[in-house]
Amino acid sequence: MKTSELGERKLIALLTRDLYTNRRVISGAGEDDAALISFGGKELVATSDIMFASTHFPRGMKPEHIGRKVAIANMSDLAATGASPLAMLFSFGIPPQFEVEELRRIARGIDEVCSEYDAPFVGGDTKKSRELAICGIALGEIGRNEALRRSNAKAGDVVAVTGEIGNATLGLRMILGGMRAPGYKKLVDAFLKPKARVREGRAIAECRAGAAGMDITDGLLFSAGEIARMSGVCISLDGSRIPVSEEARRFAREHNIGERLLLNNGEDYELLVTVKGRRFREVKGNVEDCGGALIEIGRVTRGRGVLLDGKMVGTEGYDSMK
Amino acid sequence: MKTSELGERKLIALLTRDLYTNRRVISGAGEDDAALISFGGKELVATSDIMFASTHFPRGMKPEHIGRKVAIANMSDLAATGASPLAMLFSFGIPPQFEVEELRRIARGIDEVCSEYDAPFVGGDTKKSRELAICGIALGEIGRNEALRRSNAKAGDVVAVTGEIGNATLGLRMILGGMRAPGYKKLVDAFLKPKARVREGRAIAECRAGAAGMDITDGLLFSAGEIARMSGVCISLDGSRIPVSEEARRFAREHNIGERLLLNNGEDYELLVTVKGRRFREVKGNVEDCGGALIEIGRVTRGRGVLLDGKMVGTEGYDSMK
Repeated sequence: MKTSELGERKLIALLTRDLYTNRRVISGAGEDDAALISFGGKELVATSDIMFASTHFPRGMKPEHIGRKVAIANMSDLAATGASPLAMLFSFGIPPQFEVEELRRIARGIDEVCSEYDAPFVGGDTKKSRELAICGIALGEIGRNEALRRSNAKAGDVVAVTGEIGNATLGLRMILGGMRAPGYKKLVDAFLKPKARVREGRAIAECRAGAAGMDITDGLLFSAGEIARMSGVCISLDGSRIPVSEEARRFAREHNIGERLLLNNGEDYELLVTVKGRRFREVKGNVEDCGGALIEIGRVTRGRGVLLDGKMVGTEGYDSMK
Repeated sequence: MKTSELGERKLIALLTRDLYTNRRVISGAGEDDAALISFGGKELVATSDIMFASTHFPRGMKPEHIGRKVAIANMSDLAATGASPLAMLFSFGIPPQFEVEELRRIARGIDEVCSEYDAPFVGGDTKKSRELAICGIALGEIGRNEALRRSNAKAGDVVAVTGEIGNATLGLRMILGGMRAPGYKKLVDAFLKPKARVREGRAIAECRAGAAGMDITDGLLFSAGEIARMSGVCISLDGSRIPVSEEARRFAREHNIGERLLLNNGEDYELLVTVKGRRFREVKGNVEDCGGALIEIGRVTRGRGVLLDGKMVGTEGYDSMK
């Protein structure tokens, strides 16, 4: 069977089956956005995201934006655990005809993110390849049992997100379509200049409220499905509460795009979290104190799967292998 | 300018110039085989090696060997610092037509190494790409100031290696040439089934003898050149003491291959180290106690560059970008 027939999720399940492990591994392959490893009284958090020119960098992205995107994708997986960033590594595959100046600008985009999140670019590798490839690695640290895990959700928890859904996927559509519509800068910027919700993740983890968390780069519904699956619960979303920007609504209306697309497509680096109901006000306050937002969009209930306005929905999301 | 014109070393120098850093970074990008980061009273060691089908996996390599090679290349960079392995991550780029079974066998080769070195495969990523790409990440830990660094060599130090030089590069030649010469299994196995010198690196670091270290996967002379450059010293090698196996000598003789090729080509995962002269016997004893070897092949002297039998030699080694 070909990998494209199997798809990303089943492939990961296959690759991570029966792996060797030991007692220091708290969260291993296939479990969370990042691995958690016991280290000197704390937990070491490690994550890796790899991207390829043919799949991830549409024309219209400047080299600085490419560097930024790879770095933010990795930083966002740290953010989803609530870790403090520590350092980043980047390994490059570079075609022989690639321009040095372009690579320098990619590195500049990376270094900007490293500086913004106080996570120095400390190492990596460069090799010759057929297409540009960039593999990022983000390392972080977190106190014992503080980390947000996909498996932490419990019936009764509040479901919340850290910001608007759908801006980035529409921004990507505009770039792919070569559209230069004035009034939609917010959407394009959401794709080209993303931020990772590190402060927000940290503020949630600090509360030690047993929160579950994941970023929504493969789609809000996909992430809801993952948390539901790993926690053995149902996630029930209230469509009217999901924050969608005025610009995104307007663009979707003008281009005849259904709202479901915004919830199924990724590219947004917001976090989806679940927090115990009686702790939600406190956790939300802590996130707001650091300048962030935590917007209630649903509840965790008994059962399985994801409900949107009471109806079961598919949670396939974006599959990078198909 | 194209990256292939610039070459790997200058490219790395360019990419790592003026990077953001902070006080927790002990060894950053472009300095050592692995990054060293202060973490909870110890040092966290992190390294990444990326490989691509078109450059690194010649026909004749089984999927298990491919997995093993990527894992060992990463493990070897940890070994060169003297760290204890902690965990590994692997990110994959996979062409849509790639066979699932082949990928499963690659993962098996990886997991074998993870088990041998007690470094669980804890995470990573999978994405679609034009050619098979595997980015490994190895994480380790080491006590403060214990790590072998490229910049630690001092005049008067003994220069030593942990094993035979040249077996793997000849093994690769045999595979590339489709040769199945009986009596040369040692050479082929050195390429297909490499080991990382983790115990040896650890035994050296434990002695806290201010040793310098690096693996020799880009060639013995290249690594000697790097230690000389980073330490501001001259490394003077005694050709007659460099351990070359009987099989390698015989193969080289039969195929008219000069000995210099063995010293300039890589693929061996031995360590090149320098140790203070008065501590060498003790350090060698510690390496032997754990079943390893430490073979004296020269001395560190004042000056610059690398001498082989008193003559200055080039130290370009293998450049993966050219």
